[in-house]
Amino acid sequence: MPHELNWFLLSDYFGVVVFAISGALAAGKRAFDIFGVMVIAFVTALGGGTLRDLILGIHPVSWVRDPVYLWLVIGASLFTVLAGKISHRFDNRAMLISDAFGLSVFTVIGVQAALYHAHVPAPIAVIMGIMTGVAGGVIRDIICNDIPLILQKEIYATACGLGAIVYTVFDYFQVEQGISTVICMLCVLLIRLVAVISRWNLPAFRLQHRE
Amino acid sequence: MPHELNWFLLSDYFGVVVFAISGALAAGKRAFDIFGVMVIAFVTALGGGTLRDLILGIHPVSWVRDPVYLWLVIGASLFTVLAGKISHRFDNRAMLISDAFGLSVFTVIGVQAALYHAHVPAPIAVIMGIMTGVAGGVIRDIICNDIPLILQKEIYATACGLGAIVYTVFDYFQVEQGISTVICMLCVLLIRLVAVISRWNLPAFRLQHRE
Amino acid sequence: MPHELNWFLLSDYFGVVVFAISGALAAGKRAFDIFGVMVIAFVTALGGGTLRDLILGIHPVSWVRDPVYLWLVIGASLFTVLAGKISHRFDNRAMLISDAFGLSVFTVIGVQAALYHAHVPAPIAVIMGIMTGVAGGVIRDIICNDIPLILQKEIYATACGLGAIVYTVFDYFQVEQGISTVICMLCVLLIRLVAVISRWNLPAFRLQHRE
Repeated sequence: MPHELNWFLLSDYFGVVVFAISGALAAGKRAFDIFGVMVIAFVTALGGGTLRDLILGIHPVSWVRDPVYLWLVIGASLFTVLAGKISHRFDNRAMLISDAFGLSVFTVIGVQAALYHAHVPAPIAVIMGIMTGVAGGVIRDIICNDIPLILQKEIYATACGLGAIVYTVFDYFQVEQGISTVICMLCVLLIRLVAVISRWNLPAFRLQHRE
Repeated sequence: MPHELNWFLLSDYFGVVVFAISGALAAGKRAFDIFGVMVIAFVTALGGGTLRDLILGIHPVSWVRDPVYLWLVIGASLFTVLAGKISHRFDNRAMLISDAFGLSVFTVIGVQAALYHAHVPAPIAVIMGIMTGVAGGVIRDIICNDIPLILQKEIYATACGLGAIVYTVFDYFQVEQGISTVICMLCVLLIRLVAVISRWNLPAFRLQHRE
Repeated sequence: MPHELNWFLLSDYFGVVVFAISGALAAGKRAFDIFGVMVIAFVTALGGGTLRDLILGIHPVSWVRDPVYLWLVIGASLFTVLAGKISHRFDNRAMLISDAFGLSVFTVIGVQAALYHAHVPAPIAVIMGIMTGVAGGVIRDIICNDIPLILQKEIYATACGLGAIVYTVFDYFQVEQGISTVICMLCVLLIRLVAVISRWNLPAFRLQHRE
């Protein structure tokens, strides 16, 4: 992931910020101090990419070679804590939406890193897209002892997977990278947001299925 | 792990399939969609080996270099979902038995990868055997928010460890590899199945010890 | 981490022993067999360092190249189980104190490995100090299905982080390594122990904040 690919890098930064916010919000529900909030934000924002880089053998891991990631996480954590003090509406819905944005960005980045930097076969690239998108949030939920979002929302991993498949198919037919990226992100984001919204309309239905 | 060692590779594939089934069954109890089932099956089947390859510095990780692993996981997931629709008896017992099979296969593979490919000392190879056998299931249980099997059944890790010790001792005395493999697998499998069966006979005893 | 740096190595061994005890105590509360106790002790003692070495690209991981770590974990596990049989007072308080000691040692080691062996920037070294100190205990708590200590005690990660920052600042001003190490360790240990003790005095306060 060279620094010339500015768009690639900027979208990575964007994903880190929104996932850090999502992590900080999850930590905020637990009344952590600011340092604990940063730890959870860090793990949420950089956990998926770290796992991807380790498995693809990309060394050093992104945030080790570029401290900007760390400052983004710290900044996003402070912003979330301050925003949470100002507005009590910065809550569960904000977390679900920022999580969906992060998911779409990280899915694309995971597929791109796998295809263009580690040169793995397309099916493995799809897995890397899902992993990059999902792993940070799963680690966040596991550490916070929450029921993982990936379990609560059935089409969480599905959104990632479909988006990643769309990207690799577009890549196979040599569609321009910018177009593939936007369509893949929209695909993940729309599926995920529709899932979240339709869930809001069906709370009673879910409760009946609770174990 | 070169492709010439067909037996080694085939037993690895077998372990992946049974652990994927075990993962899909665990996911099935949670009413995931098919994509979520595949994610849990994937993590269960390939989590232990991934951790082992990362720690031993074997790059690239097995399933990254060989997409067959991915197709096996997808196939096993589909099979499990279909079999689950046909027979409602494909349940907890099936999961415990397939888990025990996967455990025995992965323990051997972990020890062999450590001894013959990373050339680590025998005690470390035992650890790698346990890790390869246990880690996938532990990750599955953690993500599914279940109480890990490794905690519920006291002799889960013990079965792995004894099997791995048997293999390394046989290897030290230069017993033929095929014989070591079969005896190590039988060792893990028998200890584990006896434990599972004897547990079935002692439910009341366990309940008294519950915290 | 060459063998000439005896002090470095000895403090690493010390940290491994106290974290292994902390892991064995956590496992002991769950009535595991001796093998299960060793697995949890192993993960607690070596999980943080393993993660650090993987992310920093230090190969092979410490305990793979030096089986002494394994024997320390096994010895500490046996000691804990025996001591637990002799004295029923070897309990929660012992676990919290041994955890605090391990935390201080591992924080220093994490920062030193990052600064002197992987040559990463100072902010990343702070993260590595926190990760080395915290990760093993977090993995222990996650596997044991406990609420992570890092969540229960707000200034757990904070103690690590402040200690790590102190070390990197002292390192920047070229303070002698032994002095930096002792002050960093005291910093982590004192903050953590004060937090544990003050928590014991404020149970009612916490209960009001419980969700």
